[in-house]
Amino acid sequence: MQLTRDGDVFLLDLGEGDIRFSPDFLDTYERALDDVEHADGHRALVTTASGKIWHNGLDLEYMATLGDDFLGYLGRVHRLFARLLTLPVPTVAAVQGHAFAGGAMLALSHDVRVMRSDRGYLCLPEIDLGMTFTDGMASLIAAKLPQPALHRMAVLGERIGGPDALALGAADAVVEGDRAVLPAALDRARALTAKARPNLAGIRRDFYADVIDTLES
Amino acid sequence: MQLTRDGDVFLLDLGEGDIRFSPDFLDTYERALDDVEHADGHRALVTTASGKIWHNGLDLEYMATLGDDFLGYLGRVHRLFARLLTLPVPTVAAVQGHAFAGGAMLALSHDVRVMRSDRGYLCLPEIDLGMTFTDGMASLIAAKLPQPALHRMAVLGERIGGPDALALGAADAVVEGDRAVLPAALDRARALTAKARPNLAGIRRDFYADVIDTLES
Amino acid sequence: MQLTRDGDVFLLDLGEGDIRFSPDFLDTYERALDDVEHADGHRALVTTASGKIWHNGLDLEYMATLGDDFLGYLGRVHRLFARLLTLPVPTVAAVQGHAFAGGAMLALSHDVRVMRSDRGYLCLPEIDLGMTFTDGMASLIAAKLPQPALHRMAVLGERIGGPDALALGAADAVVEGDRAVLPAALDRARALTAKARPNLAGIRRDFYADVIDTLES
Repeated sequence: MQLTRDGDVFLLDLGEGDIRFSPDFLDTYERALDDVEHADGHRALVTTASGKIWHNGLDLEYMATLGDDFLGYLGRVHRLFARLLTLPVPTVAAVQGHAFAGGAMLALSHDVRVMRSDRGYLCLPEIDLGMTFTDGMASLIAAKLPQPALHRMAVLGERIGGPDALALGAADAVVEGDRAVLPAALDRARALTAKARPNLAGIRRDFYADVIDTLES
Repeated sequence: MQLTRDGDVFLLDLGEGDIRFSPDFLDTYERALDDVEHADGHRALVTTASGKIWHNGLDLEYMATLGDDFLGYLGRVHRLFARLLTLPVPTVAAVQGHAFAGGAMLALSHDVRVMRSDRGYLCLPEIDLGMTFTDGMASLIAAKLPQPALHRMAVLGERIGGPDALALGAADAVVEGDRAVLPAALDRARALTAKARPNLAGIRRDFYADVIDTLES
Repeated sequence: MQLTRDGDVFLLDLGEGDIRFSPDFLDTYERALDDVEHADGHRALVTTASGKIWHNGLDLEYMATLGDDFLGYLGRVHRLFARLLTLPVPTVAAVQGHAFAGGAMLALSHDVRVMRSDRGYLCLPEIDLGMTFTDGMASLIAAKLPQPALHRMAVLGERIGGPDALALGAADAVVEGDRAVLPAALDRARALTAKARPNLAGIRRDFYADVIDTLES
């Protein structure tokens, strides 16, 4: 995972492969958000990855080793979502591949989602895994997904590709072609850099206070 | 009203005519839901009817005979909506005709709504009847209808046909032709049978706990 | 500002120029709503203006003179939004020009919004002004704007023209041409006059009780 800066836009590349909320991922992501938050002036953050996966969610192998620390780990993931909702910097998810489960929630925690027309899904497969959502996750998902996307995606576990995600209000833009997502996301981010102000966090709190409080509790 | 089973899909045909929440209707519907709930394995439920009406809502003639039992009757209808929200089986409303008032709410209580392109309306005519909604009904409607469908349908009482219902997010699919709704609904149901799991009820509760509690109170 | 009546439709023309919630505006608007409320029978209200602006929101020059009365002034604006939500008469905003900040909230307080395809924006520029929203304003905006319109408009401050407003669910109709908004709004209003009933206020309260209470507190 690598954070680079081009002008006012920070680019966080999550890398390639089975990207999950591993302890290393969380350490690096939190440090990247620190860097972005503590920078000055106009700026925006784009989060992307390089392979078939944008983000695959919880690190189930790691979780299996945790025993009682399981809740602590989950809390840390929740606080990462909340951190994005309270960051005084606009964020754009350049979803070049699949965003599954916690990975889809990470995408929903960004201000803007750009997807591909031909590949990549948002998917909340909890129904098929025999799971339910934590209060924090349910609160985040319900706040960001309008009906009927909420019911189709979160209750029925439907995988939603780019064009459907745009039509259903789960994504903000869809672009065609192999390498078009990142440039489109960078354009969006450049148009948003002037929104990096202290009141951005306040305005998100105006609309997502319950989500943030539930995620942080 | 008749419950049949074809493979993993239960089909509940509400019949023909002025279908309403009569005591007989409620008895039979509750027993059908018992049968579907107590069956095992992959399964889904499709609810349809045969005439111009899908469901016409409260049985006003019966209500007029009730005096003090009026609230008990209304509570039973509310619990039927809640029952669908807590059923561990996916449900599809094959809305071949009109769904009015409580009938529209019954459709909204299903996981999926399939409508016709040329006939059939969802309509909440309470504004024109001089009525308001009960807390449970308002909670259900607000949870399922996104804006501006909520305002147009529930506040202004606009009748919404299939294509508009799809565009506004009040329906999930619209099909053309006289006999296409039921096959399309059965297809949807077959694709959902693997979601018949205990956590389906839990996931619906993640997003509709307030609705369920208000309907059951 | 002038209130006229043509059959069952009241037309409130906000005039031309930099239309804001000045004390004179509030006095006149409140009296107009009194007249509309106290009239009898079928009726509806259309609110329009004549120039480039539909409504520009708070009167910042006046506010600067107020000192401690600032909160009283803001409360009066909030109560105006609540008044529209509790008026037993359907309301249509004929948004022929720009609706900014409090002006966009005024439009959202109406039952229906008609916009132009070629001119006029809904815009909540608070993010660019370094401001956040009051609880009442945030509550109103969140209740009326579905996602992703809520996030794009209220968090990111995106200006939304007619066609996008229609697609995003922030407007109910878009019409082409210089002089088409008002006739289209009058048509909508004529179709809604029979909804002017006491229960209209009750039904709006069914869905917006929290908004009304927060605006009035």
